[in-house]
Amino acid sequence: MFSSVSIIGCGLIGSSILRAVHNKNLAKEIKVFDHSKEVVTYLKKENIHQNITSDIRQCVNSSDLIIIATPLSSYKKIILSIKDHLKKGAILTDTGSVKKEVIKIIHNINLKDVYWIPSHPIAGTEESGPKAGYAEMFENRWCIISPTENCDEQPIKSLKEFWEAVGSKVKIMPPEEHDKILSLTSHLPHAIAYNIVRTVMNVEDKLKQEVIQYSAGGLRDFTRIAASNPLMWKDIFLDNSENIIKDIDNFAKKLQELKKAINDKNGDKLLQIFNSSKEVKEIIKAGQDKSKTDFGRKKD
Amino acid sequence: MFSSVSIIGCGLIGSSILRAVHNKNLAKEIKVFDHSKEVVTYLKKENIHQNITSDIRQCVNSSDLIIIATPLSSYKKIILSIKDHLKKGAILTDTGSVKKEVIKIIHNINLKDVYWIPSHPIAGTEESGPKAGYAEMFENRWCIISPTENCDEQPIKSLKEFWEAVGSKVKIMPPEEHDKILSLTSHLPHAIAYNIVRTVMNVEDKLKQEVIQYSAGGLRDFTRIAASNPLMWKDIFLDNSENIIKDIDNFAKKLQELKKAINDKNGDKLLQIFNSSKEVKEIIKAGQDKSKTDFGRKKD
Repeated sequence: MFSSVSIIGCGLIGSSILRAVHNKNLAKEIKVFDHSKEVVTYLKKENIHQNITSDIRQCVNSSDLIIIATPLSSYKKIILSIKDHLKKGAILTDTGSVKKEVIKIIHNINLKDVYWIPSHPIAGTEESGPKAGYAEMFENRWCIISPTENCDEQPIKSLKEFWEAVGSKVKIMPPEEHDKILSLTSHLPHAIAYNIVRTVMNVEDKLKQEVIQYSAGGLRDFTRIAASNPLMWKDIFLDNSENIIKDIDNFAKKLQELKKAINDKNGDKLLQIFNSSKEVKEIIKAGQDKSKTDFGRKKD
Repeated sequence: MFSSVSIIGCGLIGSSILRAVHNKNLAKEIKVFDHSKEVVTYLKKENIHQNITSDIRQCVNSSDLIIIATPLSSYKKIILSIKDHLKKGAILTDTGSVKKEVIKIIHNINLKDVYWIPSHPIAGTEESGPKAGYAEMFENRWCIISPTENCDEQPIKSLKEFWEAVGSKVKIMPPEEHDKILSLTSHLPHAIAYNIVRTVMNVEDKLKQEVIQYSAGGLRDFTRIAASNPLMWKDIFLDNSENIIKDIDNFAKKLQELKKAINDKNGDKLLQIFNSSKEVKEIIKAGQDKSKTDFGRKKD
């Protein structure tokens, strides 16, 4: 498919792509760059990959597909250091959760003779680092490709085929729409999950142990996403701030309505609010055919 | 242990207790009352139980232990209709998620010669009705017993042994403390889960299908608890309104702090907020020894 693929950043997502490309034989050559010595040592020691370079330019200069799988805040530095070393006609993509800022960066840099096509595989766990990665991470998960206007069709088709070969279902969507939808389905839920843990854990020490002990009553459902990588999430909130703030405002408004109904002892209004369950069941159905949610997790 | 046990209300929780008492042979006689014909038909047809009476007085008059497992708003009517038919020295308990209101009801009724000891097994799923019940529901789950002041020790001990025999770990705790802790670990999380689904589903129809499609990014983690029985939750919010409103206020305050940090592009503050993960991991650890949360669900 591609003769040479480069992966920049080999944490949870990058190392999972690396494993999938290896297992499925999707490239003749795979080149890897990671700025962390620990990551490099781990990949070599576990024999996950040997062709790891400490020179990012060398990592990309002969590749047909370059995948950036680092936190969003490192994109600018990475793109600036590789931009003059990309092969003509190469495809440059990423795995980031927000598209607005990176598209601005690329636009300002004015990349030439290279196809820049953002990707976002909606997959992962609450863990970080290459140790937590696995080849099947993308199986049957959505990957959203968000080409900017005027992008040629052939490279979009090639990138789509790549993600499909990795195991994903692919959806092509404009970047603005991607950022809007992900704010609702992922960024707002993360904000809320972090916030509830922070609120609940703000009790006096005497209660804290009991709160932890009885968390199965509901609180524990929030913990997977509130345990996610803080650095990654800081970048997401900064890059998608406009959408997230709008969604937080809507959430806060609805929460005041709920509080008012409780305060007024308005049982009918509460029932109406809680009867949103019809739509909840659509969400559950969309993701699973068993009663047990799997949240896109690695199988035990 | 008890020679005769009565279960009033045979939905998800009541039918699970019924199944456990049967399977483990915890009583010589089990009597069941449910006001729903559908429930009664189901229990008989599936041969889960045959000794079902349509007279609630007859259900309780010879029992040593009476368990009320109905929504909180039905307690008053039930207690009024059984109060003159309880055996001297019988233990009356319940399975409700809030203790304040029921204790007030019992206090006003002035029950005599009967031990009233509230219970709360912290177990369940998002489903309702006897079909969703199962005998193992309480295995290794907490059950909180909240005796009122001046309750004799012997009946508390007997009730504790009953719940342990059913499979629970038992904790004895004052009712006010129970309501405060459950507001944090269960009631606030349910309020927030209902609220996020309601917020996210409030988008235009065009986006709604996409929101459902990409819900694996985080939103889906909230769906289990937002799919719970609306009637039960209405009662909980009304009965524990003081604690829940206080917790909603704290949550809303913290959410404004988070919003301000995003708005100010304050990366350090965001990192500090998201680094609550240390405590999240304690919650995860408290409930499981595998990486996969099970949320107290029935095993598939």
